[in-house]
Amino acid sequence: MPAAATSTHYQELVAHARRSGNLGSIAALVSWDQETYMPAGGAAARAEQSSLIARIMHEANTSAKRGELIAQCEADAELMKAGTETGACVREMRRDYDLATKLPGDLVAALAQAQSETQEIWKHARANNDFKSFAPALDKVMKLTREKASCYGVPAGGELYDALLNEYEPGATAAEIEAVFTPLGQRLSALIADITANGTPPKVDFLHREIPTGLQHAFGQKVTAAFGFDYTKGRLDTTTHPFCSGFGPGDTRMTTRYAIDNFPDAIGSTMHECGHGLYEQGLPKDGDKFGTPLADAVSLGIHESQSRMWENMVGRSRAFWTWALPVAKETFNGVIDDVDLDAMVRGMNTCTPSFIRVESDEATYNLHVMLRFGIERALIAGDLSVNDLPGVWNERFKQLLGLDVPSDAKGCMQDVHWSFGLVGYFPTYTLGNLYAAQFWETINEQIPDLDERMARGDFAALLEWCRTNIHQHGRRYSASELCERATGKSLSADPLLRHLESRVKPAYGM
Amino acid sequence: MPAAATSTHYQELVAHARRSGNLGSIAALVSWDQETYMPAGGAAARAEQSSLIARIMHEANTSAKRGELIAQCEADAELMKAGTETGACVREMRRDYDLATKLPGDLVAALAQAQSETQEIWKHARANNDFKSFAPALDKVMKLTREKASCYGVPAGGELYDALLNEYEPGATAAEIEAVFTPLGQRLSALIADITANGTPPKVDFLHREIPTGLQHAFGQKVTAAFGFDYTKGRLDTTTHPFCSGFGPGDTRMTTRYAIDNFPDAIGSTMHECGHGLYEQGLPKDGDKFGTPLADAVSLGIHESQSRMWENMVGRSRAFWTWALPVAKETFNGVIDDVDLDAMVRGMNTCTPSFIRVESDEATYNLHVMLRFGIERALIAGDLSVNDLPGVWNERFKQLLGLDVPSDAKGCMQDVHWSFGLVGYFPTYTLGNLYAAQFWETINEQIPDLDERMARGDFAALLEWCRTNIHQHGRRYSASELCERATGKSLSADPLLRHLESRVKPAYGM
Repeated sequence: MPAAATSTHYQELVAHARRSGNLGSIAALVSWDQETYMPAGGAAARAEQSSLIARIMHEANTSAKRGELIAQCEADAELMKAGTETGACVREMRRDYDLATKLPGDLVAALAQAQSETQEIWKHARANNDFKSFAPALDKVMKLTREKASCYGVPAGGELYDALLNEYEPGATAAEIEAVFTPLGQRLSALIADITANGTPPKVDFLHREIPTGLQHAFGQKVTAAFGFDYTKGRLDTTTHPFCSGFGPGDTRMTTRYAIDNFPDAIGSTMHECGHGLYEQGLPKDGDKFGTPLADAVSLGIHESQSRMWENMVGRSRAFWTWALPVAKETFNGVIDDVDLDAMVRGMNTCTPSFIRVESDEATYNLHVMLRFGIERALIAGDLSVNDLPGVWNERFKQLLGLDVPSDAKGCMQDVHWSFGLVGYFPTYTLGNLYAAQFWETINEQIPDLDERMARGDFAALLEWCRTNIHQHGRRYSASELCERATGKSLSADPLLRHLESRVKPAYGM
Repeated sequence: MPAAATSTHYQELVAHARRSGNLGSIAALVSWDQETYMPAGGAAARAEQSSLIARIMHEANTSAKRGELIAQCEADAELMKAGTETGACVREMRRDYDLATKLPGDLVAALAQAQSETQEIWKHARANNDFKSFAPALDKVMKLTREKASCYGVPAGGELYDALLNEYEPGATAAEIEAVFTPLGQRLSALIADITANGTPPKVDFLHREIPTGLQHAFGQKVTAAFGFDYTKGRLDTTTHPFCSGFGPGDTRMTTRYAIDNFPDAIGSTMHECGHGLYEQGLPKDGDKFGTPLADAVSLGIHESQSRMWENMVGRSRAFWTWALPVAKETFNGVIDDVDLDAMVRGMNTCTPSFIRVESDEATYNLHVMLRFGIERALIAGDLSVNDLPGVWNERFKQLLGLDVPSDAKGCMQDVHWSFGLVGYFPTYTLGNLYAAQFWETINEQIPDLDERMARGDFAALLEWCRTNIHQHGRRYSASELCERATGKSLSADPLLRHLESRVKPAYGM
């Protein structure tokens, strides 16, 4: 009898979560449409709609009923047995419920509305390089974000920022990240100095030949289809800032962007979002897991490991371009017919400090992340005010990357994240690179002929490894458990450094 | 003190309605995306999302709180004073609330299930021309629809059918519609007979030259922008079945369809949906009216009057093509350069009886509607049984349109409406034509140089007339009041007949 009763509770909990999953799908559509097809005149109303759907979701996710069902499940020892799917599901639902119930509904709605409004202001401010018009809105978002962090509460021995970090990378702390980022930064700076002093920069001019964006789109679709993205269950559209959104079962939306004279940027963004898209398509959303943590991504760091792996480990490799260069030549109607494989691979592995994070190369990218991590940590700690942001940005940028920032549009206003109150999010990008590199070493051990496979456009075994070791598990294991299970080791900076050196040095003839 | 208190109730009611308005915007997006960009794999999840958002809307619209607020407002004589906006708003909210709450949950569920089942059966039955397999399911839907009508209640002095009609065309009665439709049908049949006997059919072959759909789209955008559709507050996309959806403030989405060898069909659909779109953009959705009946369309008939006016009265006129033909020639890269104005206008005004309503011309379309009106009225009254439907359809079709129906698939099973329990909906199509023609006569009296304006692509005065006389009022006045206010007369068949004769006869050289 107790077994049947708890089983009913679990089924009820799963059904309750499914309603939230469906609300999440609707919210994802509302947000995707805002970035893709919504006419400008719809912005104000859209902010209201976003706020409303966020409120309805929050009500569902914080309902007393949800809490009761979780507690009833927790009381069932059989259900909660260590190592079971059901136990992991209830554990993660408890985590979400506790996080969600700590935020008052008014704060959630205020944040949603401020985010939507600030995003519109940011668009105009960045276009006009007008930080002053952006600052008050950003300040409002930051105040609300600090309020949110306070509601979550500072973890024992931690800082306010950790409370935000925990939303995206459960269990991570600023201190731990600093401990990995600091040596990584130092060794990266050393690598850059070495290359600058002793390397021969690869030619890149051919990467900026004019290629109609329609042809770039066609190339991106061919590559991502070869990777295994299922276009009967997803799309690729165009936005200012590329993203990927897993709407729910059978519907994953990627976006990318095109510049007529920069096809590597477009294909890089497309492969990146495809990595996210493959993860979303690989999560077990069919059946009754949808809406529960079992069909959800572990953490942003793990999500990013998937995008970075396809973008960088695959997308900048000689093996990939052995297959992809002929495809590109055919698609681009002769524009790059004279480019040989060697030049292409070297061109894809430059290491040159530049201003825009999303345009930066694989190695210096991490320095951009470290800059943002330091600044947002200071903003949340109250050690830095929004008005001082441009000055501090420019000063630290010079220290880390050695360049003078020419404008706020190319400086502290380049990313949408802070407009959205996404604080604690940036470090997950470099965590993603670290996880990706560590997975990549294991994958190459377990699939010894991976290079030959990729060189003939066969990515099936690679995707299968990701499905088996990462995607299918949802949130059953934590990020660090998943890393240990997949690679046999805990996270370390070494694989990423080995990987970057193995790619960058040959590109510079070293 | 009482004034302040009721004012608070009114404000609360308006805020409560605004939430429904925002939910409606979200539901409209969910539905639009399904028709435009959703990948096929998302269909099952989308059905769950649609059902969820519909349920949330229904809960809001039938909530006890909504009922209380309406009752509190109704108790305030000042607020309800005749001729006031507030009084009209509360009156219409009462109407909506009563309609939404009069149906027992069991009946709603039974109808939903029967509709869904019958629609599937209809698809197969139509494909196999097998009315017998469709009849029992249709009979069930009709019984439930009659039950629904009984729950709504027969209006004093009216019939059961009026209760259904009232959902789509508030206040209209079958007897009134019959009084207009009967002479219209007789005189239309006479017109067709006259043309058939004495007219020379216009040439139409040039209307089927191949024109790339991208160029047709560009032409549609030029025409609708000239009409006054604000593309900063709307879009035009492509779907199998064209529609227009007013998402809410600043966001109206139109769709159309393209066949490479039928540009008049595309531009006709585009102008039709643009008429709906201009109405949606003209409704006073800014400020606090959004979500209330004051920012809502009066009736389906009035909505259709707007689409039909731009599609037919404007879009088939010599004045319009005087401006539009050179635009089309330029856009279509020479494909119709040899077509002269006379041929174009004649080709756009054919009148040929055919079997399928949605493919029929401007004049005969109304006969298709009348046929359905008579039959569905008899079905609801119990004067016609579902089993006798094909025989009666074919007999009346012969009387009205002079053709022998070759199959039930091209006869009484061609439309999806009845499978859905949409009874009382068809007559609004012809009501739209009648209203459009009556408005059109008044417009031409009040803007005597309208033809010259249209001939130079100037539609501003025409749109302004619609804004002033129709759009801005929302549901403040009933459809018949709006007609009287705008034209000084109650609805009559004469303007539509005069209009059709003035267009069709010259096209046939009479």
